[in-house]
Amino acid sequence: MASYQIAPLARLVEQFERLPGIGHKSAQRLAYHVLGMAEADAQALAGSILEAREKIHYCKICCNLTDQELCPVCRDESRDKSVICVVEDPRDVTALERTQEFHALYHVLHGVISPLGGIGPDQLCIKELLARVNAGGVEEVIMATNPTVEGEATAMYISRLLKPLGVRVTRLAYGIPVGGDLEYADEVTLSRAIEGRSEI
Amino acid sequence: MASYQIAPLARLVEQFERLPGIGHKSAQRLAYHVLGMAEADAQALAGSILEAREKIHYCKICCNLTDQELCPVCRDESRDKSVICVVEDPRDVTALERTQEFHALYHVLHGVISPLGGIGPDQLCIKELLARVNAGGVEEVIMATNPTVEGEATAMYISRLLKPLGVRVTRLAYGIPVGGDLEYADEVTLSRAIEGRSEI
Repeated sequence: MASYQIAPLARLVEQFERLPGIGHKSAQRLAYHVLGMAEADAQALAGSILEAREKIHYCKICCNLTDQELCPVCRDESRDKSVICVVEDPRDVTALERTQEFHALYHVLHGVISPLGGIGPDQLCIKELLARVNAGGVEEVIMATNPTVEGEATAMYISRLLKPLGVRVTRLAYGIPVGGDLEYADEVTLSRAIEGRSEI
Repeated sequence: MASYQIAPLARLVEQFERLPGIGHKSAQRLAYHVLGMAEADAQALAGSILEAREKIHYCKICCNLTDQELCPVCRDESRDKSVICVVEDPRDVTALERTQEFHALYHVLHGVISPLGGIGPDQLCIKELLARVNAGGVEEVIMATNPTVEGEATAMYISRLLKPLGVRVTRLAYGIPVGGDLEYADEVTLSRAIEGRSEI
């Protein structure tokens, strides 16, 4: 039987399939949706992909994403420049900003040390962090990597590099999540919550 | 508090959010994925969106999607030109082709009559179907719209237009799906299966 594929459609489906969380069926659905879009909408979609790739790069100071020389946090004169919160990913900055409780600076590593994934310290933005601390004025570095094995190991690695520079290195508190249920908390989290208990 | 949005990133998230089945979280995930892509991959993705929109149009005969003048089915000389199977959507053609049992032609309506959705017969490829039947050589038209209220109504509407032209108009069989379970079949499907029973 002859194959009845339409080449540009097949290519589009293949491109969508490469995106995370999108399987073959979803990719087909998206591709047919694009075919039914107004010409201007399709151009806006394609254009915003190219624009984002082209204009967005790392902030000169904190390695967060920005379309200008410095990211909005580093540009903001009102923020406390003596504390740096180290996170894995730009999305973590967004999450912390949503709390509206943190008014100092960030540093984005863009990953964690992962020997199995072939990611060593040199592929992360660690030297930029050391340069910032070396430049002076920093009193505390809060490690806010994810509470996973790799996140922990990365936090340990970086804190060993930072301590000789004379800054205080801290870690986000472990414990039971607010609104959580003790019954369903895992043992490690619970024992960390007991260790970290505070007076009422 | 100042807003720390990055304009090109926000635009990209917004574009992804407009796609079907993609919420805010998925759109963010896709946008960050695009930022991490190689330049050439991002260009391939954007390019294939534009290419598909530009090159793909309706087949002159059956209104299926194609990047040439005629779709591969209509181009295929070996297919039986006396039977036309009418479907709602190009994806239905793909589904029927997968059976490898149907060797005649298709006609794609691109939707169903839906007064609530503001879609009338004029917005569907119905006149093209009538023109094909009027041109002669067609003996049977199989209505293969979906077994929904709107699909049924559309099939009835079209069959009333076709019957005066002297062609046989048929409908796909209703019944229990192969591999299905009688216990879980709904009453309407079961009663249709009884009505349509055949001798063993």
